[in-house]
Amino acid sequence: MQVFKLFSSIISLTLLFSGIIFAGEVPLSEASEECLSCHEQVHPGIVKQWQESRHALITPKDALQKSKLARRVSSKNIPSGMQNHAVGCFECHGINPEQHADTFEHNGYQIHVVVTPKDCATCHAQEVKEYSQNNMSEAYSILMDNKVYMQLVHSVNDLTVTKENLKKMNHPSLDTDKESCLYCHGTKVKVEGKTTKETDFGEMEFPSLSGWPNQGVGRINPDGSKGSCTSCHSRHDFSIAMARKPATCSECHKGPDVPAYKVYKVSKHGNIYSSQYHNWDFEAVPWVAGRDFTAPTCATCHASLITDGDGNVVAERTHRFNDRLAWRIFGAPYATAHPKSTDLAKITNKAGLQLTTELDGTPVEDALISAEEQQVRDSKMKQICLSCHSSNWVDNHFAGLEHTIKETNARTRSATMLMQEIWKQGLADPSNMFDEVIERDWTNLWLFYENSNRFTSAMGGGGDYSVFAGGRYQSTVQLMRLHEFLKNHTPKK
Amino acid sequence: MQVFKLFSSIISLTLLFSGIIFAGEVPLSEASEECLSCHEQVHPGIVKQWQESRHALITPKDALQKSKLARRVSSKNIPSGMQNHAVGCFECHGINPEQHADTFEHNGYQIHVVVTPKDCATCHAQEVKEYSQNNMSEAYSILMDNKVYMQLVHSVNDLTVTKENLKKMNHPSLDTDKESCLYCHGTKVKVEGKTTKETDFGEMEFPSLSGWPNQGVGRINPDGSKGSCTSCHSRHDFSIAMARKPATCSECHKGPDVPAYKVYKVSKHGNIYSSQYHNWDFEAVPWVAGRDFTAPTCATCHASLITDGDGNVVAERTHRFNDRLAWRIFGAPYATAHPKSTDLAKITNKAGLQLTTELDGTPVEDALISAEEQQVRDSKMKQICLSCHSSNWVDNHFAGLEHTIKETNARTRSATMLMQEIWKQGLADPSNMFDEVIERDWTNLWLFYENSNRFTSAMGGGGDYSVFAGGRYQSTVQLMRLHEFLKNHTPKK
Amino acid sequence: MQVFKLFSSIISLTLLFSGIIFAGEVPLSEASEECLSCHEQVHPGIVKQWQESRHALITPKDALQKSKLARRVSSKNIPSGMQNHAVGCFECHGINPEQHADTFEHNGYQIHVVVTPKDCATCHAQEVKEYSQNNMSEAYSILMDNKVYMQLVHSVNDLTVTKENLKKMNHPSLDTDKESCLYCHGTKVKVEGKTTKETDFGEMEFPSLSGWPNQGVGRINPDGSKGSCTSCHSRHDFSIAMARKPATCSECHKGPDVPAYKVYKVSKHGNIYSSQYHNWDFEAVPWVAGRDFTAPTCATCHASLITDGDGNVVAERTHRFNDRLAWRIFGAPYATAHPKSTDLAKITNKAGLQLTTELDGTPVEDALISAEEQQVRDSKMKQICLSCHSSNWVDNHFAGLEHTIKETNARTRSATMLMQEIWKQGLADPSNMFDEVIERDWTNLWLFYENSNRFTSAMGGGGDYSVFAGGRYQSTVQLMRLHEFLKNHTPKK
Repeated sequence: MQVFKLFSSIISLTLLFSGIIFAGEVPLSEASEECLSCHEQVHPGIVKQWQESRHALITPKDALQKSKLARRVSSKNIPSGMQNHAVGCFECHGINPEQHADTFEHNGYQIHVVVTPKDCATCHAQEVKEYSQNNMSEAYSILMDNKVYMQLVHSVNDLTVTKENLKKMNHPSLDTDKESCLYCHGTKVKVEGKTTKETDFGEMEFPSLSGWPNQGVGRINPDGSKGSCTSCHSRHDFSIAMARKPATCSECHKGPDVPAYKVYKVSKHGNIYSSQYHNWDFEAVPWVAGRDFTAPTCATCHASLITDGDGNVVAERTHRFNDRLAWRIFGAPYATAHPKSTDLAKITNKAGLQLTTELDGTPVEDALISAEEQQVRDSKMKQICLSCHSSNWVDNHFAGLEHTIKETNARTRSATMLMQEIWKQGLADPSNMFDEVIERDWTNLWLFYENSNRFTSAMGGGGDYSVFAGGRYQSTVQLMRLHEFLKNHTPKK
Repeated sequence: MQVFKLFSSIISLTLLFSGIIFAGEVPLSEASEECLSCHEQVHPGIVKQWQESRHALITPKDALQKSKLARRVSSKNIPSGMQNHAVGCFECHGINPEQHADTFEHNGYQIHVVVTPKDCATCHAQEVKEYSQNNMSEAYSILMDNKVYMQLVHSVNDLTVTKENLKKMNHPSLDTDKESCLYCHGTKVKVEGKTTKETDFGEMEFPSLSGWPNQGVGRINPDGSKGSCTSCHSRHDFSIAMARKPATCSECHKGPDVPAYKVYKVSKHGNIYSSQYHNWDFEAVPWVAGRDFTAPTCATCHASLITDGDGNVVAERTHRFNDRLAWRIFGAPYATAHPKSTDLAKITNKAGLQLTTELDGTPVEDALISAEEQQVRDSKMKQICLSCHSSNWVDNHFAGLEHTIKETNARTRSATMLMQEIWKQGLADPSNMFDEVIERDWTNLWLFYENSNRFTSAMGGGGDYSVFAGGRYQSTVQLMRLHEFLKNHTPKK
Repeated sequence: MQVFKLFSSIISLTLLFSGIIFAGEVPLSEASEECLSCHEQVHPGIVKQWQESRHALITPKDALQKSKLARRVSSKNIPSGMQNHAVGCFECHGINPEQHADTFEHNGYQIHVVVTPKDCATCHAQEVKEYSQNNMSEAYSILMDNKVYMQLVHSVNDLTVTKENLKKMNHPSLDTDKESCLYCHGTKVKVEGKTTKETDFGEMEFPSLSGWPNQGVGRINPDGSKGSCTSCHSRHDFSIAMARKPATCSECHKGPDVPAYKVYKVSKHGNIYSSQYHNWDFEAVPWVAGRDFTAPTCATCHASLITDGDGNVVAERTHRFNDRLAWRIFGAPYATAHPKSTDLAKITNKAGLQLTTELDGTPVEDALISAEEQQVRDSKMKQICLSCHSSNWVDNHFAGLEHTIKETNARTRSATMLMQEIWKQGLADPSNMFDEVIERDWTNLWLFYENSNRFTSAMGGGGDYSVFAGGRYQSTVQLMRLHEFLKNHTPKK
């Protein structure tokens, strides 16, 4: 008996670790079986990933039987024809063929290449709906339809020099945009025609796609939907565990414009994660604070369903990450209350710029959530902190963030005042705000450094990323540069 | 039988991995039991951490029975009333109530929020004493009582611009300092009054603290003690394993001013750690070179008790990290022999600056350890290296460090000579040495780049962090900037 | 029975994890046994590493019995005297004594300190031969025999300032070079004489080596051979698992000049690695895509023998990493087709500079592989991608890289045109191309930023390392600096 008890501890410990799920044999649809008969040879890597994924190991019908808190499918009406076999190749690549411009005839089946949120919604309707109300789903438009930001895009991606013209903007290059900004924001995937390829099974015809491959968060798909679930739930294991680990977020949130991952890694929470995550359970649904993890990852605070050990809900699952965000702290010169709508490109300030503030920092209040809504969101976030911290601790932490928002906005305002004076005196040309060295000094200040100060405050209550590692030390250098530029170019009295 | 032998291998391997310790039921004090009756619901996260910590799994009495090398408690006279139950909530938050300005009445108990080194000394007296002789314990004063460094603090944290005054220092903002410099150096935690909060158990009164939360290494505590054991031994598992992993040190030692973690990660030792640490035992006391780990972490060289497989001591445990440090390689313009005392702010050079050298690099010798003491410390450090390296290897490595110290000091001297000439010619204002662009170029050179060269030399014998990744390449750019600044502003002969 | 099946799963899972290999007792040579009798006490760390290494756990004879795909030794004629015992201390440190200038008499044996590729070739002949045809093996000469690069080395390592001479090159310091460039490129290890040391076993004499310790990839060894197998297969476990993990490559490939590791970490592949590698088998030979790993590491694409689950070879093992590289994307102002020969320092452009292109980007075509050879190499690389990706995906990915190569070369050409005009107008001195601030702006552009854009494209199809994190954003700032420098110094018409 003792032997068997030990056994089961060992097994559960070992499984916890290896992340392997044992399950009964799950039937496949005939179509998916046919897919596998070739693709197991042609693409062994992804087939193996899928075989170890939950999609291969449980039928939708069984998934629907799970208790409310443990359930991972949210659709009320999964087609009955899909319920009794695994979610295989054909279930995702063969669904909604008429809506997909990228559908093509493939060995007797209508197949599409790009699986989209609309396809995933068959089983995960609520997550897809929430995501559509998430800023990320509009990431393409937020960038590409904003004239201010497009000035930055062009000065970054399309600036060149020729003998005739010492500084010049090229026509925008979509190929370059795809590798830079749109890598994270998402491309527009378009069917450009057909292409014929020689394969192991003879000549075959496939759709020829532009803007592909891409897994940006606001990708415009061939069925008109927006986003890419594989941004975080990588193919073909579509793992909740992976999405809960901070490396996933680091794919887009590591650079100086949005240094979340770097800040997290050296925070107290990040250290506990680095030191202890081998003992955590990243597969458990719901995710139990204390039992399954002892410090938050990105997902804990921004997305996951969290409960305590008694099954009391600490935070509801959401794919509308704004739900717990009172402030927007990056991606614009000033931090503000969070925008109401995801259509950020539609917000215009009094000067006609597509920004949520005036250049002096005054917010475009109509476009932003109210102080009351901020409190609602803050209290959702704080609920998670309170699993491990006293209310005094938590209140002081968030008071620190509000202080830092004010302080960093004030420094941005100082810098912008200097920049505007430089433009006014004709020492730089405001027609593009990002294509002169002094303008980049100004941009560095808010796009990188004040931003970084805010992330450090929000996620760790401070640290070196808000001093010497791309924080206040660097920010004040920009301020000095602007000040000295103006001083050196202004006639002495 | 064979089965059981296999079993025990598996169990020990599995436990090694999961870091879980099985122990008999350990009794709780009545007070801690009462704490847990509410806090298990209110703060499930930290209660769970504590439940899996050594504090919950062994009594001080049993801990004292361990053999000398395996013992983790150093106090000779742990109060007998504390010896027979676990170290629970009340044992730490209820001890020394009269010494704590943050003590408050809480459901019939005198409780304090901030557990301090003085509290921890009840069981860990030697570690606390050593730590008090460690520079880190004076990190608050080292910064805040040094007028030179406070110029830097103000120019980083408090510089702003107004219409009336193009460049101006604000009054110092403690809220900002708390999120920047003092995040690592430690805040002064002060009781500002009382605050009443609505809780799950009705209205309650708590002390209202400023400078809190904070876990900086030199935190000034409400009982007058200095430091925070949770800087490295995070609450509430207080794990030796965590403190031995380099991610812990990275919380403060990653930025360009002290890039130890970055340098370690890409060093040979860091690579072996990254690749193999899953097979190491971070819980073992003593820590056996070769058996428990095959490459050093930060703790191995700077703190841990290391033995060989026969129980011979390779290095004594110390929380006075200076014990193994012959040189001070960062935090000042020049590297020098290590200061004798932790009261760095009391050291003054001939020019009256609170620095361990003159601006030309000449050391303030009285304040620094002798060459003999350097040899003593070096030999302690080398003893650890010799577990895996020949004496020729080790001697050459340390000769390399001495060369780099001389070389980087020489470049700092060159830069400072240029900077002083700039000040002398009135091209910059020396009244604050850190608030002009050219002054920051000079600061970058020593605070970031020469520093980085020394860390890379000390920890890895070289590498890209001493060339292109914030090393000599960047340092020489600063030198050129200083040189060209002076050349462009000096009348041609 | 069921119990035993469970058992064996657990055991294999646990072993998979811990990486420990059980084997029968393997005999030692008499010489190695004598080595161990002292060194087990003196150097317990490395002895333990070796004891757990494959070298200690299998004889060459047994290793030769493995099936072709599973075999890790490639020599056809391992001396019969070495076949029947473990590969111990003496087998490596006592082989080829007459070829080693560092051989010394040690307790009756002729021992050398530095084990070299020529020594390793005894069992691993093919790997050593391939490596000798790999650019890395010439890394010393590639740098030290190239006058252009030596200008950079001097301006980085040897620039200083004196009162008499405001900017000056010192004589090159080999001590400094060893800690900076040669740390990765490899030193020249020379026997400088003998040194006598007091040891636990009395006074002993050892060779005194300069350029040591070092494990750079192109190290010049005391037996005349080039390279160091321990660059990637760290002593004394010489593990294939370690070489397959990206942390190994990060030792040299992380800085801004070659940011491969940083780019990988935030790529989709890097995220899958970070999230899942605990479930992978890094020891398996051959390495089976899908079964042993589900995303590539550096080794997967550049070195390892990869098969599918049926034993079909996807990629042959190679230590001539060029085999799968159509392009050379770093280490020179412009990306070009890969050089034919490893003797890069022998390539000279029309202007007499040791570069693979003219300064305007025109390639020195004779020295570079043909478009046909590029296709051969590309198709080897693509074969690996196709294990998980469709041919459309893969083709689009590589088309993206070719676009980025053209685009980044064009921006480098723009910058170089400006730089040449600056030189022409006498605004900077071209006699050393790297020792003025404006020259470093030019260097930053190609050495760091365009480079980074290409790595990001090649390894991830884009991302923030090609925009804000040291990519196009920073590159265009350099372009603006060059442009504004020229504009500000040119007489207005």
